[in-house]
Amino acid sequence: MPDAPLLHRVRIVLCDTSHPGNIGASARAMKTMGLSSLYLVNPHSVPAPEAAALASNATELLDRAVVCNSLDEALAGTVFAAACTARSRDLPHAVLTPRETAARLLRESAAGSVALVFGPEKTGLTSGEVSRCGAIATIPTDPRSTSLNLAAAVQVFAYELWQSAQLPESFPQEAYQAASYEEVEFFFNHLEHTLYDIRFLDPSQPKRLMRRLRRLFQRARLEKEEVNILRGILTAAQKARSNS
Amino acid sequence: MPDAPLLHRVRIVLCDTSHPGNIGASARAMKTMGLSSLYLVNPHSVPAPEAAALASNATELLDRAVVCNSLDEALAGTVFAAACTARSRDLPHAVLTPRETAARLLRESAAGSVALVFGPEKTGLTSGEVSRCGAIATIPTDPRSTSLNLAAAVQVFAYELWQSAQLPESFPQEAYQAASYEEVEFFFNHLEHTLYDIRFLDPSQPKRLMRRLRRLFQRARLEKEEVNILRGILTAAQKARSNS
Repeated sequence: MPDAPLLHRVRIVLCDTSHPGNIGASARAMKTMGLSSLYLVNPHSVPAPEAAALASNATELLDRAVVCNSLDEALAGTVFAAACTARSRDLPHAVLTPRETAARLLRESAAGSVALVFGPEKTGLTSGEVSRCGAIATIPTDPRSTSLNLAAAVQVFAYELWQSAQLPESFPQEAYQAASYEEVEFFFNHLEHTLYDIRFLDPSQPKRLMRRLRRLFQRARLEKEEVNILRGILTAAQKARSNS
Repeated sequence: MPDAPLLHRVRIVLCDTSHPGNIGASARAMKTMGLSSLYLVNPHSVPAPEAAALASNATELLDRAVVCNSLDEALAGTVFAAACTARSRDLPHAVLTPRETAARLLRESAAGSVALVFGPEKTGLTSGEVSRCGAIATIPTDPRSTSLNLAAAVQVFAYELWQSAQLPESFPQEAYQAASYEEVEFFFNHLEHTLYDIRFLDPSQPKRLMRRLRRLFQRARLEKEEVNILRGILTAAQKARSNS
């Protein structure tokens, strides 16, 4: 079985994890499937003996884990991220199965690092966190019992990633250059300011509209040049407002 | 999503399990995927508070678990069983992937109860136990790290069983309303006019830029409500230009 270098570009991002045992078990799940890049956003405690015990022979993965203060920090430098969530969202985003998620992550990884983001055990990801990602990934379950253990969910996605990475089809380099996470976030920031300037956005209620717009552009997977064009348009709109 | 009565015919059989936490986590994994029938062969301790804690809301499944003294007893009345093992066996048996195992178990379950058998955490199933089963099921892994946690392995098979049980019906499509061709064209028209108004578009060379923007928004497959929001923004930009 060939090594799968694209799997090393897939970050598993665990946000606000409460139980160190879940971090350890997730590391073990990753290692069995050739994943090596673990990011921890505000873990409640790490490293802990409990994590090491459940990591089994994957402690080296825990040792190399990148601890971050925010999701932004964990996604810096990525070109695509998928948010894992069981909850249905008011805004229908592209919802991918684990299999589709795996294929998508590997395809996007041709352009750079990608991420799969998991929320805290009890509450899952917030809408704000989900809106930083390009797709929603959901594990189909019995609707009467939708809550998987965190590490079990990591195992399912890791399993699909490993399977996808073994497929004979290669993932060709896309001809276009995907915009980085930071570039896309700068664009959203610029967009929000421009919408204030042209009096479109109600400053008391900006969140919902921005979430809708984020969703649209995340779905489109912006390219570098497109971000440049869009920001040029925003600047022109701001100038048109202030010059005249 | 339909209930899947065939899943109730699938027994998950755990042999000589050491850690009650693994039994609880396996029960939880089963419940999320519509499985209800747990058999425990010589568990080292059950029931235990640790099992209940990790079972989350699947304790009823633990309460109903059938405790047996031998694998023979656990397989009594079944028409087909698959043995889960990571180790390669000297006797070449049919080796199925989790996906193939799920399909096979459900197919055989038309005739009666079926079973998926897991060995103890440290050693796995013995050759004698494997030989009581009609197939070997193996989760493909990175060859450098083949050992999944027991409950994680149960989760992967349970996930495939649930998916198989839903076929050929896949998940319903999201219920958003795609914008019509005409709506999208009106938007492009409005966009082009606004870009003139805010002096972004060079009237002598409009085509190339509009082609880029078309490509972006076509790729996003705009929804009706999104077209409304975008046209609202364009109108605000035009007003900001002319009113001031």
